[in-house]
Amino acid sequence: MSKQYNVAVVGATGAVGSKMMEQLIKRNFPLASIKFLASARSAGKPIEFNGTTYTIEEAKPEAFDGVDIALFSAGGSVSEALAPEAAARGAIVIDNTSHFRMDPEVPLVVPEVNRHTLKDIPKGIIANPNCSTIQMVVALQPIREQYGLTKVVVSTYQAVSGSGVAAIEELRTQSEQWEQGKNVEAHVLPAKSDKKHYPIARNVIPQIDKFTENGYTYEEMKMINETKKIMEAPSMHVAATCVRVPVVSGHSESVYIELEKEATVEDIFNVLKDAPGVVLQDDIENQVYPMPIYAEDEEPTYVGRIRRDLDNPKGFHLWIVADNLLKGAALNSIQIAEAMIEDQLI
Amino acid sequence: MSKQYNVAVVGATGAVGSKMMEQLIKRNFPLASIKFLASARSAGKPIEFNGTTYTIEEAKPEAFDGVDIALFSAGGSVSEALAPEAAARGAIVIDNTSHFRMDPEVPLVVPEVNRHTLKDIPKGIIANPNCSTIQMVVALQPIREQYGLTKVVVSTYQAVSGSGVAAIEELRTQSEQWEQGKNVEAHVLPAKSDKKHYPIARNVIPQIDKFTENGYTYEEMKMINETKKIMEAPSMHVAATCVRVPVVSGHSESVYIELEKEATVEDIFNVLKDAPGVVLQDDIENQVYPMPIYAEDEEPTYVGRIRRDLDNPKGFHLWIVADNLLKGAALNSIQIAEAMIEDQLI
Repeated sequence: MSKQYNVAVVGATGAVGSKMMEQLIKRNFPLASIKFLASARSAGKPIEFNGTTYTIEEAKPEAFDGVDIALFSAGGSVSEALAPEAAARGAIVIDNTSHFRMDPEVPLVVPEVNRHTLKDIPKGIIANPNCSTIQMVVALQPIREQYGLTKVVVSTYQAVSGSGVAAIEELRTQSEQWEQGKNVEAHVLPAKSDKKHYPIARNVIPQIDKFTENGYTYEEMKMINETKKIMEAPSMHVAATCVRVPVVSGHSESVYIELEKEATVEDIFNVLKDAPGVVLQDDIENQVYPMPIYAEDEEPTYVGRIRRDLDNPKGFHLWIVADNLLKGAALNSIQIAEAMIEDQLI
Repeated sequence: MSKQYNVAVVGATGAVGSKMMEQLIKRNFPLASIKFLASARSAGKPIEFNGTTYTIEEAKPEAFDGVDIALFSAGGSVSEALAPEAAARGAIVIDNTSHFRMDPEVPLVVPEVNRHTLKDIPKGIIANPNCSTIQMVVALQPIREQYGLTKVVVSTYQAVSGSGVAAIEELRTQSEQWEQGKNVEAHVLPAKSDKKHYPIARNVIPQIDKFTENGYTYEEMKMINETKKIMEAPSMHVAATCVRVPVVSGHSESVYIELEKEATVEDIFNVLKDAPGVVLQDDIENQVYPMPIYAEDEEPTYVGRIRRDLDNPKGFHLWIVADNLLKGAALNSIQIAEAMIEDQLI
């Protein structure tokens, strides 16, 4: 891997963008050069990266000239407008927004699950899946390969950082207001662009992103559709209920699955203990199970509370936790780039 | 209802006991007399009730002489020892602990669901179900009566008040520690009597109560077994994952069900809009759905986010929220007594 790459980060000042920068440094990504792109409003501002101060440039088509890899995390409309421009200039785009995810010509990639789809990138754009989806498929794919998978019913416990820096600040502010007996004000969650806002401190909100016409939220539809696309299982039964909880970072998921073949808890343990990207945390004798505060800033997808359903011998329950900004976003994006380099696709 | 009753409250100083006292006053319960019983340690202490100061008496067998209705909420071991003594002295015991719930000679009652079982109380003891179970069966029973019910998969989002006053205090203390950048100390959750304790502030804990030998927690087994007993459906498929969240009061539940007959969302709406004890909060156009902060101190079981499964026309998803200390405990206990009075069983 002596080749080096010219990388552009679009949206570096956001919650995911800053984690992308951390990961590029931490993982020693083979950088020939790096540039930081943002809206005209942020252009000209300084940004620190690995001890050097860079100047943010305006994200316009020509800014992608000479870029090999463009990491996008600046919102769906920015990706819609600029990802094709970057790709047209020869960059491989790895897009963290939802804009291109369901495009049949755009691979939707979790390297542990469907790395092979990186061989064919007709639009020059690769989509990074939804955070909640990534950690779930990392845990479920190895089980599916051994025992088949017919049904997935997931309820999520999602951290506020998934809604950006403003939501993290709001949780902190609301907590203080609550403790001081003041009125708790809400301006960000459940969705900044939606009409009403509700407190998240001491609350759970069964809405993430806005509602679609079928009564599901966009977040729920992302989990359903993206899981089927990544696992290449269009007829698999997938259902999701997505809920925001007052946690800073780390998404948790209560997942019920039904397998094609019968299996024991030991079988599932044996599959997961060597599964790529998975760390088993399942020792109930010693109260060991995954929890979001201990997953923060960690790379793996943690799985625990594995137990066979009491009424269905092909049914299993799992509890899956990962850092939504890392494996759920920034880390997975960098891992996509690393997989392409390793596989000599770039 | 001109008859009046001598009532004893065992465990009045706990989180549930104090709510029982509030409900007796608020609902104008026909009291001839009331007494407050506790351990020898608390005996002699004053306790306020409806503007009068009472003295807490020691909970010993003779204290139940002349008592018509004994409300127990002082832990399983107290109920085990004293509920039969109270019953032997002619009191009807309504026990909020788990001790007698699965006893086949003890009815386990949610008045909206199985009030008819109050006709036969062989031991003089009635059990009040687990908080998470009560709100779920209130919402599911009317659906089951119309469309049948074959499968229930629930993931809970349970408030700390379910673990008592100390857990509420700990959430507050930990929040302050977290905000001030101090070490967050844990002494109560997930279960006071278990070996390890974890922070609940900014966290979710997938353990409520201790673990049983089959890998499920006692809380999960309560939801599974009690749901089957209350609904008189031993072969119904019921599965539960119980999770503590940093909410003060109000349990939330993400529930997936499968019906015997096909139904539409409108059918489910029509069943629930007139169901006893249920308030529909389901208007996604206006972002209306149940949330625990708005359920606190409220009596109903709130149901929302009702939607048909996209892959199974007999599958539905619901989001169910209620105040765990009220409908989940104190209110349901008082409603049991009221139902017995109305049905002239006492």
